[in-house]
Amino acid sequence: MSNLYLAVIGVGGVGTAFLSQLASLAPSMRPTLIFISRSSKQLYTNDYKPISPSNLQTSPSKLLSLPELTTYLAAAPGKSILVDNTSNQDVAAAYPSFLRKGISVVTPNKKAFSSSLSLWNDIFDAVDKSNGKAMVYHESSVGAGLPVISTLKDLVATGDQVTKIEGVFSGTMSFLFNSFAPVDGSGKGKWSEIVSQAKDAGYTEPDPRDDLNGMDVARKLTILARLAGLKVQGPESFSVQSLIPKELETVGSSEEFMQRLPEFDGDMEAYKDNAAKQGKVVRYVGSIDVAKGEVKVGLQMVDRGTPIASLMGSDNLICFYTKRYPCPLVIQGAGAGGEVTAMGVTGDLIKVVERLR
Amino acid sequence: MSNLYLAVIGVGGVGTAFLSQLASLAPSMRPTLIFISRSSKQLYTNDYKPISPSNLQTSPSKLLSLPELTTYLAAAPGKSILVDNTSNQDVAAAYPSFLRKGISVVTPNKKAFSSSLSLWNDIFDAVDKSNGKAMVYHESSVGAGLPVISTLKDLVATGDQVTKIEGVFSGTMSFLFNSFAPVDGSGKGKWSEIVSQAKDAGYTEPDPRDDLNGMDVARKLTILARLAGLKVQGPESFSVQSLIPKELETVGSSEEFMQRLPEFDGDMEAYKDNAAKQGKVVRYVGSIDVAKGEVKVGLQMVDRGTPIASLMGSDNLICFYTKRYPCPLVIQGAGAGGEVTAMGVTGDLIKVVERLR
Repeated sequence: MSNLYLAVIGVGGVGTAFLSQLASLAPSMRPTLIFISRSSKQLYTNDYKPISPSNLQTSPSKLLSLPELTTYLAAAPGKSILVDNTSNQDVAAAYPSFLRKGISVVTPNKKAFSSSLSLWNDIFDAVDKSNGKAMVYHESSVGAGLPVISTLKDLVATGDQVTKIEGVFSGTMSFLFNSFAPVDGSGKGKWSEIVSQAKDAGYTEPDPRDDLNGMDVARKLTILARLAGLKVQGPESFSVQSLIPKELETVGSSEEFMQRLPEFDGDMEAYKDNAAKQGKVVRYVGSIDVAKGEVKVGLQMVDRGTPIASLMGSDNLICFYTKRYPCPLVIQGAGAGGEVTAMGVTGDLIKVVERLR
Repeated sequence: MSNLYLAVIGVGGVGTAFLSQLASLAPSMRPTLIFISRSSKQLYTNDYKPISPSNLQTSPSKLLSLPELTTYLAAAPGKSILVDNTSNQDVAAAYPSFLRKGISVVTPNKKAFSSSLSLWNDIFDAVDKSNGKAMVYHESSVGAGLPVISTLKDLVATGDQVTKIEGVFSGTMSFLFNSFAPVDGSGKGKWSEIVSQAKDAGYTEPDPRDDLNGMDVARKLTILARLAGLKVQGPESFSVQSLIPKELETVGSSEEFMQRLPEFDGDMEAYKDNAAKQGKVVRYVGSIDVAKGEVKVGLQMVDRGTPIASLMGSDNLICFYTKRYPCPLVIQGAGAGGEVTAMGVTGDLIKVVERLR
């Protein structure tokens, strides 16, 4: 193949899994790794020599800023690809500059596609203007390795009309409600107990409020709504029901929050009982009504027989209702975790390599 | 873009829907249509001028054979793509010749990928040897527009280990059993009545035996098993349970078959009752145990709570169990019909155009 070069930013859980998947690709599918960074460490050579991730310990004397990295990659003796495995807003904001220099971007970083609409427009304008030379792939920005973004893009590109998108978009929320209000009517304890257990088991962010505020789901819906053609300003421009009780919004530490959460168990119990009386269960659902231009995130009472109600563990479930699929096209499975998120990134990288080589 | 040329074989239900989806693509994504054929009609010009599908009525004086079509496309003043919308074995057998001449192939034609293993090997050898110049995409060969093939390919390409694939792979079988033995224990009549209703409503092939013999499902499983790495000789090399009663195997006409089918309603009723006694329902399931190298197609008793049991209408459902997805990655939705099959073809064409231009 023609020379392809690869820069990787971020070597945390996803990044580590990605590097190991990258190493297992056939040599013909593997671009030459020339830059890698983690927090304030970087590894690269001035003359684009292949580097090994295991040498990241030794940093170069000069750290490259994002504009300098752009210049560095643009001057490589072949096309280059940036894999951003962070969730960093600054890196996301630099995508248009990378793309305008012909550098393709592959990333699970939700921020790039769910922040301001102007950043979204800048990114895709740059892709359009590159005439197929620079591309952006972001499968793992929704549902990790599940084929959510690619399916929605295919539906739209082939001329289908998406009418509604609905589902459970957070592995954490899925786990919490599948445990709190399973379809069989049982339940594994009080709401605050379940949140606490989930936190201890690592199913939530270190601070569970980062899941409970619903912003992660709101970001994913922003991305899907935009792909479906809605001009959504951002994740704060539509109704998102936070599960952080109003009275606890000003609490400082996550410890204090967890300590006081039991005071509000009654509220969640009431939701659950109310649903049960109607033969339903309560779930944290995201939905996009494309015709009405309406995006909603929050608690919903769901019929017991539906796929959303019967979801298990921490699975995600995404339903696409379209003209061609009035009975929805449904995708279900683990929507978080290092390995499956990295899989979406590696799968995207393969597609970019196939197009560029 | 560089000049890309398109030949389309087959303008039936899928082909017609494909041509209409093709017409709605952005001009930059639309290769120049230079050849189209239907049964014994063809339309093309000697100097690769764009043609219009609506002119297919007027045939050229000389009909091109498949080898002549190969030569014609290979000599086009740019790269060319063949879209085969037939289910024709002869066209499928010619794919290696097309690919060896650098002509890419996009198709829903199951025959190409589920017949002899040597044809499969010839096709993918030709792709490999083309060094990325000729490619083959066949999303709609399993589950129509559902992202089944692409998902399995991504799982394998990124280094996941597929352990099991299981599901309902036939819209017809799905409809028949969801009507005959729904989870709520009811049922819409005797087996033969339901087959007859499905035939009248166009849910089966003109001769329902073409669905009931299980070969359509066996072909799909052959394709998936091969993609998962098994060297399956063909759809007749593993256990396929036919729902054509032994006593009716020698019956000539489909009318006589339908007339005599009620004699065997007792057998299907016994299956149903037997399952019900165990709190289960009977379904027509295909499964691939990758570790054991075992492929099976036939009736299975399925727990009421499972996704396979709760399937509705004529939906397909495919579960991928892998190392990364021990709780399966599930894809569900309509798996047959002109529009959704064409969607898989058009989606594939877009990917080929993106790679070739």
